[in-house]
Amino acid sequence: MEKLTCLFCRKKFPVNIFETMCPICREPLLVSYPPRQRKFLTERASSLEKFADFLPLGRVNPDLSLGEGNTPLLRLSRLGEKIGFSALYAKNECLNPTASFKDRGTAIVVQKAFSLGIRKIGTVSTGNMASSTAAYGAKAGLETYIFLKEGSSREKALSTGVHGSVMFEVKGDYGRLFEESLNLGKKLGIWFANSVDPFRIEGYKITGYEIYSQLNNMAPRYIIVPVSSGGHLIGLMRAFLDLKEEGCLDKLPVFVGVQARGCAPLARAFFLKKEEVRRVSRPETVAHAISNPAPPAGNLALKLIRENGGMLLDVSDREILKAQKDLAVAEGVFCDPAAATTLAGLRKLSGSRKIKSRDKIVLIITGSGLKSMEVLEHQEVRLHRVSLSRLEYMLSGIGDGPRSRFC
Amino acid sequence: MEKLTCLFCRKKFPVNIFETMCPICREPLLVSYPPRQRKFLTERASSLEKFADFLPLGRVNPDLSLGEGNTPLLRLSRLGEKIGFSALYAKNECLNPTASFKDRGTAIVVQKAFSLGIRKIGTVSTGNMASSTAAYGAKAGLETYIFLKEGSSREKALSTGVHGSVMFEVKGDYGRLFEESLNLGKKLGIWFANSVDPFRIEGYKITGYEIYSQLNNMAPRYIIVPVSSGGHLIGLMRAFLDLKEEGCLDKLPVFVGVQARGCAPLARAFFLKKEEVRRVSRPETVAHAISNPAPPAGNLALKLIRENGGMLLDVSDREILKAQKDLAVAEGVFCDPAAATTLAGLRKLSGSRKIKSRDKIVLIITGSGLKSMEVLEHQEVRLHRVSLSRLEYMLSGIGDGPRSRFC
Repeated sequence: MEKLTCLFCRKKFPVNIFETMCPICREPLLVSYPPRQRKFLTERASSLEKFADFLPLGRVNPDLSLGEGNTPLLRLSRLGEKIGFSALYAKNECLNPTASFKDRGTAIVVQKAFSLGIRKIGTVSTGNMASSTAAYGAKAGLETYIFLKEGSSREKALSTGVHGSVMFEVKGDYGRLFEESLNLGKKLGIWFANSVDPFRIEGYKITGYEIYSQLNNMAPRYIIVPVSSGGHLIGLMRAFLDLKEEGCLDKLPVFVGVQARGCAPLARAFFLKKEEVRRVSRPETVAHAISNPAPPAGNLALKLIRENGGMLLDVSDREILKAQKDLAVAEGVFCDPAAATTLAGLRKLSGSRKIKSRDKIVLIITGSGLKSMEVLEHQEVRLHRVSLSRLEYMLSGIGDGPRSRFC
Repeated sequence: MEKLTCLFCRKKFPVNIFETMCPICREPLLVSYPPRQRKFLTERASSLEKFADFLPLGRVNPDLSLGEGNTPLLRLSRLGEKIGFSALYAKNECLNPTASFKDRGTAIVVQKAFSLGIRKIGTVSTGNMASSTAAYGAKAGLETYIFLKEGSSREKALSTGVHGSVMFEVKGDYGRLFEESLNLGKKLGIWFANSVDPFRIEGYKITGYEIYSQLNNMAPRYIIVPVSSGGHLIGLMRAFLDLKEEGCLDKLPVFVGVQARGCAPLARAFFLKKEEVRRVSRPETVAHAISNPAPPAGNLALKLIRENGGMLLDVSDREILKAQKDLAVAEGVFCDPAAATTLAGLRKLSGSRKIKSRDKIVLIITGSGLKSMEVLEHQEVRLHRVSLSRLEYMLSGIGDGPRSRFC
């Protein structure tokens, strides 16, 4: 049977979805498995079934799936050429059912909830995890409770609420809201599968297995991923640690976690060589999806990054917006600012560290630009207004006519 | 070599991407192939490579792909049970790179453009084809020209413009804009791959092949699809006609094209048993993506529907909005109003025609709700505003407190 393990005190606990933080260390617990034979079943269509041997599920119930995973690994040839890397890739998680990587974790949570007979799930979110949880909850017919961070975008609130969840926008400290959700969940029988829930994190491993498969059973040299709570980064690292344990690779990829400068508690602790992450008092960045001022898996992510030769860094909003634009214009990928930190991070990294031009580099594009449209105020998007009769004239000499406007 | 064929006068023409309408009949041309051995290569990862034998491409260039296709076929168990069908499915085209089915056609167009050395592409669109063309054009490094229909949503304009296209919002008749784009394209060397471009239509066939594969090499009894220009419906029908020709099935599915009552030129012609579609003077519907008042493939779609035992019908905005809500709440699928016409259409159909409760029915969910957020004004989406300290109180007795608001 699976257990929950704390990587700090090394204690093991029986699985209890209402107790997902170590009672001793207050750090997130992770799923640990008894020794068993594991292999990929890549001939299966569903992403959960392909990697079922590595997941904490019994039978996979197809009725609970929204078609998560199996996202493309795109070769970024044009951008790569521009910045001097010939094997640059994007793992485009926007092609998940609710347009972000969160669906991978939610899919596991909902499978597990269903098999345990739990009828109420919830989450605390800035938006992507909210719409993911709402959609999967709806698919499974569960009652769904969403605590949205104050100031979440209209698109995120609407695309969550449309699934019929009970939804609160909660004024107050986001770190305390995380704690409070777990307390309320225990009291009211609602599984609050937040960003660092151990089962949610298991879902993020699948992205790692897919990358390995898509690169013809090779690991990339670098994996660059945005970091907020730390859960996603931990899941990705666990995937490659699994593959190493199975003898599939000699060397782990270098994991590079990127934060926005206006909310970079992990990057700061990494830079200052601290073991504990300190809360950020006034987070401010265009990358709302990763603006968690008190990341609950911060210490754990820091520990794993240090133990495995990874690194953490931060990038400015200006760099993020430039990266967002570059991905859209050079590669046709319209991602949100959080996801764009990966390209900004690579640029920064390549200035300070020798990355070989042929090293395989994978950017994890975590979420779609469609749910953060407000940020396009910072991008120049030009729309010329014209009548049908003047179209040819305008087309032959495109300029800044008096009729053009910014969207 | 492939040719272009008119199904009305039966004449064949050599491929010329600037002449995509029959010079005699003014009806859309379709790609026809010389006899050849064809089979599915389902072990391939890319959707274009899987079905390359059925497509008008030579080598598939992976650098031009954004990971189109391979979308999930979801079993709609909860909704199916509610409305009395035990084998109801959704082919969820929202999981394409720019969140609509248009990517399948654009992928073919861009492959073809690249192989022919064409450097400029364009399209005329209400939004989904615009963002698709802009994204694929960017990926391939082509110059991209977009003529947006007046009044297209902010999300659609922004998510197109972000890719750096030259973008015009054109005031004037949409039918004439279609014609004018083809004229200008010929003059300026821009391939305007509009909704009924023969190569674009070939891309829509892939959806049909995928459905057949996903149902374990069976055709469904019904395929229900929203209809605007007619191109998508024609592509889907062509897929199953191909499969019939290959001896893979005895009987075609019944194709049901659905339009919004406020712009239903095809459904009207079908009902009135006319052979020619008459333009709608003042289209008005919440389903903007299918509000084409003068569908350029209207007559052709009508002909194919009649020849193959299909049907066309219309549904009201009220029915569409209810269907959109039902798909979101019961199945976790947040689609746009155009896509929701499929469920509304099934409801209407099942009132008038005997559909067996175990018949396999596939709804084609053509596009994401994320690009039509304005329509959620018509849906009740409730967000309770609350402080952290009052959260427990509110959660235990959820009601219409004075602090709740509609998004």
